[in-house]
Amino acid sequence: MVACLPDCSKLNWDVGESLWYYINMVFKFTCEYNGKNYQGFQRQNNGPSVQAVLEDALGRIFSQKIVIAASGRTDTGVHAMGQVCSFVVDTDMVWDLYKLAGSVNAFLPDDVAVRDFEIMEDGFNARFSVKSKSYIYRCYVGQVQSPLRDGFMLQLYKMPEVGFMQDAAKLLVGTHDFTSFSNVNTDKVDKVRTVTEFDVKLDGDEITFKISGNGFLRNMVRILVGTLLDVGYGKISVDDIKAIIDSKDREKAGQTVAAKGLYLMKVEY
Amino acid sequence: MVACLPDCSKLNWDVGESLWYYINMVFKFTCEYNGKNYQGFQRQNNGPSVQAVLEDALGRIFSQKIVIAASGRTDTGVHAMGQVCSFVVDTDMVWDLYKLAGSVNAFLPDDVAVRDFEIMEDGFNARFSVKSKSYIYRCYVGQVQSPLRDGFMLQLYKMPEVGFMQDAAKLLVGTHDFTSFSNVNTDKVDKVRTVTEFDVKLDGDEITFKISGNGFLRNMVRILVGTLLDVGYGKISVDDIKAIIDSKDREKAGQTVAAKGLYLMKVEY
Repeated sequence: MVACLPDCSKLNWDVGESLWYYINMVFKFTCEYNGKNYQGFQRQNNGPSVQAVLEDALGRIFSQKIVIAASGRTDTGVHAMGQVCSFVVDTDMVWDLYKLAGSVNAFLPDDVAVRDFEIMEDGFNARFSVKSKSYIYRCYVGQVQSPLRDGFMLQLYKMPEVGFMQDAAKLLVGTHDFTSFSNVNTDKVDKVRTVTEFDVKLDGDEITFKISGNGFLRNMVRILVGTLLDVGYGKISVDDIKAIIDSKDREKAGQTVAAKGLYLMKVEY
Repeated sequence: MVACLPDCSKLNWDVGESLWYYINMVFKFTCEYNGKNYQGFQRQNNGPSVQAVLEDALGRIFSQKIVIAASGRTDTGVHAMGQVCSFVVDTDMVWDLYKLAGSVNAFLPDDVAVRDFEIMEDGFNARFSVKSKSYIYRCYVGQVQSPLRDGFMLQLYKMPEVGFMQDAAKLLVGTHDFTSFSNVNTDKVDKVRTVTEFDVKLDGDEITFKISGNGFLRNMVRILVGTLLDVGYGKISVDDIKAIIDSKDREKAGQTVAAKGLYLMKVEY
């Protein structure tokens, strides 16, 4: 329980006012990571996870066991520019929010970094308080692998029809039952989600998909991108999209594209 | 000496005509690499080089010792999207140019790849035949390191004045003696070069410098970028640029910025 939490909304968090004395403080922070070397965000028994390295680093700084909540788990190999986490600390220390990121980063490996620590009102939870999330998925087109992009983008061997993909993306915006676009191994019962934005942009030999929504099912972004690529290559027609949604059949949608092209960009609360 | 080289300019290198029988063929190819794990392009005694891995892979394919010429050496840690190399092979085999890149890439590590093999006229040399080269230098602005960009861009802790840097860049375009912007340890006597393009672009929190010219002295791009950053941070004024050029004094220009932000993008012949 919060012992002496002032009304955060009235604080001006400039340098002069960044030092505060709390007990059971709720912290929120943003983190960026290269997912390549991790078995996903969530702590695992069988391999390194982003959650484990974050909790270990925070534990050293706060000298206690820290358990973080994240906006969502990212899968093995998925990257994040703007994953958001929260945790509660029982502390009677004074913390300088501006120095905290630097201190925590000193205990993190090079492929994970934290920034933008904030103190939140009691009850804030990075998982349950999410309003919307944005992802991008990145591809490059080329017959030959590109060493500078290979860990960060999916290689496409030929150029898909971007116009068709853009048309199909528009049909996926809105509130739908996304069962067809979800990994069948999921414990979620309600598969209705709202996609507020789904853009496809071609820039030189690179294609970037940008998608935002109020929530995403397991593998949903990667299956949506795989489905659009099938549209781009003529395996699925734009007119089929509605039927695929209505079928609620994972078999009807496209493949799950590789994790390395996916980035969790932004989470809003 | 070339035994049976047809007039390349008259050939249409589509699939049907890509199989040819030559002796002492001059090959040109483009390569891309992540410079992180290499002591630069040039073969070294004390560490891995891009040249060594390329020559080893080509040597396996052509079953002979291959010595490649490159458009220029890139320094330790510098990346390339479009390095161009050439080499001469004594061969009586038939080579399919379209399959050659794939064969060579099979023997290359993941951080180096080749593409776009061409057969050139006798006398072509990727080093001596260069007409112009283009580089980019990439930075991001942030107080906290960015794991997804750290190996590929220079971190700037605060935003420089981009407008001032753009003004200074314009003054560096043209034919000048670039002694002030060259590593003093160089065997080049003539330090006059022509810079044809020098752009500075801000996109979100990323700044990209693009420079093209007929040739570049040792560390020249990195010193030019370092000098512009000094302008952006007010350490050097735009009006000083002409005096720095005229001084022919390396001490007057800015620092040599880190190699990891530099990319050789394109070489023209």
